[in-house]
Amino acid sequence: MAKVKVHVFLKPGVLDVQGKAVEGALHGLGWGGVANARVGKLVEFDLDGAADPAAEAKKMCETLLANTVIESYRIEVA
Amino acid sequence: MAKVKVHVFLKPGVLDVQGKAVEGALHGLGWGGVANARVGKLVEFDLDGAADPAAEAKKMCETLLANTVIESYRIEVA
Repeated sequence: MAKVKVHVFLKPGVLDVQGKAVEGALHGLGWGGVANARVGKLVEFDLDGAADPAAEAKKMCETLLANTVIESYRIEVA
Repeated sequence: MAKVKVHVFLKPGVLDVQGKAVEGALHGLGWGGVANARVGKLVEFDLDGAADPAAEAKKMCETLLANTVIESYRIEVA
């Protein structure tokens, strides 16, 4: 069984409104040194019965987990 | 300048409806070997002018980034 972690982020250049909101809120709370905040998704799951878990996870990202028009992803298999 | 990554996950035992939805969708697409899917948030930002970035990030999590009643978090500083 493989433990798969998929990080999904908006591509650079795509406006990250959630990140902007977090940055603004942190500034408002006194953390003025915060910059370039980005908010992404992290999907973790166990994968059984796959010969090549990384390749399967890549297929999952392309079909379901990431919107590849605006999002990029990174896969970690442990 | 420190690069801070904050992973926010629902605590074990808290029903993760988003994770269940992802798991169900992957099963429906033919990946029956997927189990224990959890969906979390990943917040990345640059932090300037902090003597102890990890301690500052912890304070940010407690006040804004995580709902500590139902969510846990992990901080990485690079």
